[in-house]
Formats: sequence, C-alpha cells, structure tokens
Amino acid sequence: MLKVGIIGLGTVGSSVVRILQENEEIISARAGVKIIPAIGVVRNLEKHQDLGIVLSDNIDDILEDESIDMVVELIGGVETAYKIVKKALQKGKSVVTANKALLAYHRYELQQLANGKGFGFEASVAGGIPIIKALREGLSANRILSIKGILNGTCNYMLTKMIEEGVSFEEVLKEAQELGYAEADPTFDIGGFDASHKLLILASIAYGIDAKPEDILIEGIEGITKEDIFFAKEFGYSIKLLAIAKKSEGKVELRVHPALIKKEQMISKVDGVMNGVSVVGDFVGETLYYGAGAGGDATASAVVSDIISIARGDASPMLGFKKLVSFDNLVLIDKDDIISEYYVRMSVVDEIGVLSKISSIFSKYDISIDSFLQKSSKNKERTTLLFSTHKCKELKIQKALRSIETLDFVKEKPSMIRIED
Amino acid sequence: MLKVGIIGLGTVGSSVVRILQENEEIISARAGVKIIPAIGVVRNLEKHQDLGIVLSDNIDDILEDESIDMVVELIGGVETAYKIVKKALQKGKSVVTANKALLAYHRYELQQLANGKGFGFEASVAGGIPIIKALREGLSANRILSIKGILNGTCNYMLTKMIEEGVSFEEVLKEAQELGYAEADPTFDIGGFDASHKLLILASIAYGIDAKPEDILIEGIEGITKEDIFFAKEFGYSIKLLAIAKKSEGKVELRVHPALIKKEQMISKVDGVMNGVSVVGDFVGETLYYGAGAGGDATASAVVSDIISIARGDASPMLGFKKLVSFDNLVLIDKDDIISEYYVRMSVVDEIGVLSKISSIFSKYDISIDSFLQKSSKNKERTTLLFSTHKCKELKIQKALRSIETLDFVKEKPSMIRIED
Repeated sequence: MLKVGIIGLGTVGSSVVRILQENEEIISARAGVKIIPAIGVVRNLEKHQDLGIVLSDNIDDILEDESIDMVVELIGGVETAYKIVKKALQKGKSVVTANKALLAYHRYELQQLANGKGFGFEASVAGGIPIIKALREGLSANRILSIKGILNGTCNYMLTKMIEEGVSFEEVLKEAQELGYAEADPTFDIGGFDASHKLLILASIAYGIDAKPEDILIEGIEGITKEDIFFAKEFGYSIKLLAIAKKSEGKVELRVHPALIKKEQMISKVDGVMNGVSVVGDFVGETLYYGAGAGGDATASAVVSDIISIARGDASPMLGFKKLVSFDNLVLIDKDDIISEYYVRMSVVDEIGVLSKISSIFSKYDISIDSFLQKSSKNKERTTLLFSTHKCKELKIQKALRSIETLDFVKEKPSMIRIED
Repeated sequence: MLKVGIIGLGTVGSSVVRILQENEEIISARAGVKIIPAIGVVRNLEKHQDLGIVLSDNIDDILEDESIDMVVELIGGVETAYKIVKKALQKGKSVVTANKALLAYHRYELQQLANGKGFGFEASVAGGIPIIKALREGLSANRILSIKGILNGTCNYMLTKMIEEGVSFEEVLKEAQELGYAEADPTFDIGGFDASHKLLILASIAYGIDAKPEDILIEGIEGITKEDIFFAKEFGYSIKLLAIAKKSEGKVELRVHPALIKKEQMISKVDGVMNGVSVVGDFVGETLYYGAGAGGDATASAVVSDIISIARGDASPMLGFKKLVSFDNLVLIDKDDIISEYYVRMSVVDEIGVLSKISSIFSKYDISIDSFLQKSSKNKERTTLLFSTHKCKELKIQKALRSIETLDFVKEKPSMIRIED
C-alpha cells in the first residue's frame, strides 16, 4: 500500500484523484501495490467536497504524517513549492511534481535531497507526453545530439492559426484569450519563458547541464507578422516556437525562439494546441513524441505514471541519470556564438542603391545571402525586403541588423527569425 | 558490473557491441554499473574478428557460464531462439531480445519463466521508438482505448511512393527490392505478418491479451491499385498498413490491414520507411511516437536501453504489468464482428441498371453508402466504381461483396479498404 498526499486540487490535482479512483484496479496491478489518494490539501475546504478524499487546509497534515509515503505537489510557483518539496524529501517521503518553474531553478538541489527516494516530474514537460521517460529510459543508449520541442500549446495554437488563416498576431491572441488558450497576461507563454523552463529540464536529463532561464537565449512570438507568414509559406516553411538543446564539440546550446522549419520535417506537422518533441540520438537517429501538452487529464496522466513508477521501485535520479555529472564536461555555449541560418525582414523606402547598401553590410559581417524576396509594393515609402542567410554566428547577424537599422532608408527595426533545418 | 553475452552478431548484434563500446561511459553512468559485452556467439568465427569482443561458436559458452548475467538473443526465428531464451531464463540469467516472432508465440510463457529477472524486448516493436516503455510506463495511468501503428517500414515506403509518385504496386516493389527495403520474398512484410507479430506484443502490454497471429485479421498491401490511390487522394485520405488494437465493451479487436486515414490525422503523416504509433488513453488522449522502425543502429539502441533498464534493477514484467491477467477479462472480438467504414472498388460493364443492382445488395446487408465515385471511362466494358460506406460489420461487407461478385456485369472480384477515422 502506498499512501499519497496531494497538495493542490486544481484542474490537475482533482484529475489525479479521479484517475487513482477510476483506474484503481489497473493501476494497482501495474504498480504492484495499492495506491491510495489519502488526503488532499487545499486552501478552500468547501470547494472539493465531491472528490471523495479526506481534505485539509493544513500542509502539515501531509508533511508531518508518517503514514503518508508520497507527496504530490501541484500548487505551482517557486518559493512555497520549494519549501514544501524540500521538507517532504527531508522527511523521507518521495515526491511527484508538475512544477516546471520549481525545477527550472531547484532541480539539482532537490534531486540530491531525493537521493534514493523517488522524485518524479514527468508532468512538468509536455503534459501527457512521456518525454522525460523517453529521454531517461527509452533513449538511454544514446548520446543525445539534439532536442527540438514544441513545448507551449498557446504559442503553437496561435502560430498555426496565423499560418492557416492569415490572421494577425493581435487578432489571434484575442481569440486565444477568449477560448481560454491564452492567459489575460500572456507574457509567460508567448514570451517563451514557459518553454524555457521545460527546455532546461529536458537538457538536464540529456546532458546533466545546470543552467537557469536567465542563462539562455529566449525570444517570444510577439514579433511575428503577416509578412513573416507570407515568406514562410512562399519558401515551404512552417513557423514554430522551438525550444532547442543541441550538442556540438563539448558545448551545449540552449535556446527558445520562433523558428522556420521545412514543411517536410515531422515536427513542423505538430499543429494547434498540441506539443511535440523531436530527439536525435547518435544511434537511434530521430524519434518524435507528440500529444497534449496541457490540460488537467493529460497532465495528471503523467503525474500518475510517476506515482506508479516510484511505487514499482524506480527511484533512480532523473537528471543525468545515476551520477550528477555533466557528461563529457559539457558547458553552455555563449549566446553570441550560436550558429544558425536566418530569415530577415526589413521595411525600407524603395529607392536606388538600397539593396547594394544592405548587401554590403551583410558582406562586412561575413553573412552570405541564400535567398531574397522583394514584394512589389504600391507604396514607395514602405517596401518589405525579405532575406534568408547561410549559416553565421548570432553576434554577426545582431551587429549587421543594428548597422542596417541606422541606414536612413530603413523605416523600422529589422527583424529576424532563425531557420532550423 | 554486468556481463552480457550476445547471441548473433548480424547488423543489430554488432551494433549493440559498438554502442556498448562507444558510449561506455555514459551508459555506465546511466545504468549505475559497468556493462560489459563479454562474449559474442556466432556461426562463423572468421567474420567478426574486428568487433573487439571474445567470440565463440558454442552457445553453451554463454548459457553455461555463470559469470554471464544477461543473454541478448538476436538470432531471430522461433524454435531455436525459444530454446535458448528458455534455457537462459531457467539458468537465472536476464534476457533481452529483439525477436518479434518468438514473442508472437511464446511471450507469456517466457515472461512467466523470467519471474523476477529482467526480460526485455523493446527492440521487437518499431525499432528505435521506445513504444513498449511508453505503454508500460509513460501511459501506465491510463486504460488504453486504442493503438494504431505503422509498424512495417517496407510497406510504408511502398505506399508512400505509390501515393507521391503514382507508381504501381509492382513497380514500387521492384524498386524497394533493389534498394534493399524489401526482401527477395517480401511476403512476410507486405502480407502484414511482420506487423501482426508486433501488434500482438503491444496488445499484450496494453490489454494482457493472449492471442497468436492465426487468431487475428491480417491483410497485406498487395491488392492496392492505382485506382485506390486515386480515390484516396480525391477524398483527402492517405493509405497506410495499420496494425490496430482497440477496446470496446469488454472486447479487444486486433487487426492488420491497409487503411484509409484522413490526411489531418498525425499518423497519416508518418511517411517513407519510418514507423509511427498512435496510442489513445482514457485520460491522456492521443499520443504519438515516431522514428526509425528498422536498421541495425536504431534497433540496437532499443536493445541497449533494455540492458540499461535491467541493469538499473527494473525487472518487472512487461506484459500486463505486475500480474499476468487480462484486465477487465478482455476477450478477442470475432473477426466477423469488427465494425468499420469501408471503401469499395469494383470493375463493371457500364450498362443500365448496374448501380441500382449494386445498391440493392448493399441495402440487403444494411450497408449504407456514404460517397460514390464513377470515373468517366472510354471503355464501356470496364468502368471503375468507387464507394465508401458508413459503419457496418465485417461479416456484412464480406457477404455483400461476395454477392456483388456473382453479378454478370462485374468483371473482377470487388476489393475493399477499411477507413479509419
């Protein structure tokens, strides 16, 4: 028998209780022991009477109760959750959490505390997709060469709509908010921060690398325009907010940003609110995992899968597997040194010499143009130029764009989207 | 330290050795113990000298050596492999195998023998895709509602070519054979038998159901024509060889056959030699797993992931999890009772009354027509009629087709493809 105390009975928490109740028999058989949702801790005791478990508004009813074997933390946020999880582990309880923000900052410390007890967080990345187990177990024979994830359903829904229906960012954001796919303050999602938390977790499993959100390149989708969509379609690309971890020559690059991806690539086919993660291993090649990245039931499915794994005795650490080492002593690459191909959009006055001046700036920074598109425009005062480049360093494209921005025929800050092949 | 004896050093076996050698450090860290490829048993000792492991042509050098902890069986085929695996388990060794045919017939018996020791077979289904671990661990909170797999790369390559390039079955088979994607005798692949073995393994994990290939509906892709491809494109379908396990009302249906799938579905986007498996769970919804289904390195990646899992102490049974029970006492549905929508193609003499006579036969068997397409033809003696039906039982469509076949204006046996929504 394994007694579980659940802290937080929101959408995910109440779904966890329902799964443990409704699928009790099959879960017991799979876990090898009976798993009992013994108590739920909530702020408002009135609210969850119908769930059929003992309720309390005092966290110590879980943490101080020695009969509770496992704590499921589902309150979110960093500081309070950190104190709770830390205390639970110190008390010798195993812990399952869906809290990506907590893990983005405290994963190594908490894992060390968990030492020998179970500490599961499958639900913290990509909802119901068992991507953590895939990296940790299914692909364990491989050195991971790259991870590319569509990890934020809100952004993916919005970008899919923009491409399929040609609507603007502002229009689709409003619609997403009305449908409940985007928060009233959508910054955390559309700014790429949510995806960055998840990326750090995946990168820790693949590479054992300890980085924080502040350390990595994060750009959101708020600057994507109808022109970008036009270019993408014209050249056979899809636009996705990608979270990327990539290994090359002893370094790991971690970045979150919108990316142009060729339509033939499987990950470009992950549309709408769905999530998808493509992982390339040195022997297995590419594998891809697809499913619901959010929602109470899908996320709870991942929480309960961790509960079952721990009940079956799997308590080995998740991050960097058995040892807390950075494999191959990998270090994080400097943002400026990240190499990519770029798509660049700029708005200029249509006059003689424009293209020559822009080209010479690209040349100055060793950036070579791969394709160029000028949309015919009735408005001589505002013509859009679209470029794509061959591979170059982040620092060079940034310098080139800043230099181009100062030219007097350039009407607004040029913008760029990275191209991922 | 875990000493592994490998029986069979073909493409997969020699790749297993290379992974264990090249990724030794990372694998040791992940497994928590050093894993040593101690000995390889081969028929021809001359052939594998360059692999850098001890070779023998005597299986007893593995089976009778008490210092060998684990046997990796990679010789394929049923009878000899069965004896080897059985003896290894009886000797108290753990076993990892990639042998789908062995498992299609002996999986429950072998698992029972393994009792408490590790018995892994991730590599037996879908090559490098960790679909067995996903079903067994990642989705363990769920009742599995359905599994739909593209599990045979040869068939998928051929069908993709037929759709993309409009070539005939015969042409593409010849090409696949030249490229090494299809065997000289391709029956095992294109007849659906390979996929059926894999399906039985997946269905055992999801449902604990004990069936043999002979018990289930298996149809191959050899009857797919250019007309079928035309219809599929016209109505927005892709054609895939699908292996399907589905649960409904206490019964499980298992079947392998070509299927029309709406192009919007993620699984219809799995093209070429790649494999993909879509799994629907009662809480998680649909998740999909994609990757290389064959090839030495990808398959070896799965073999080694099992070795690592067992080294880490995961020895719980794979099939039906902890207990060898059929969950909910599920039984296999009778083939005749399987319900589907159908696409039907027939070749007729173009004369008055044809459609009315055919329609009346469909009516007689309670089959209702969903769509109908008659291609304009210059040849009055041979016109193709294409129908799609609403849902009906297998037995009824079979009877209707046999009845239609006897009409004198019908020029050849009508053929049908099931439609999977």
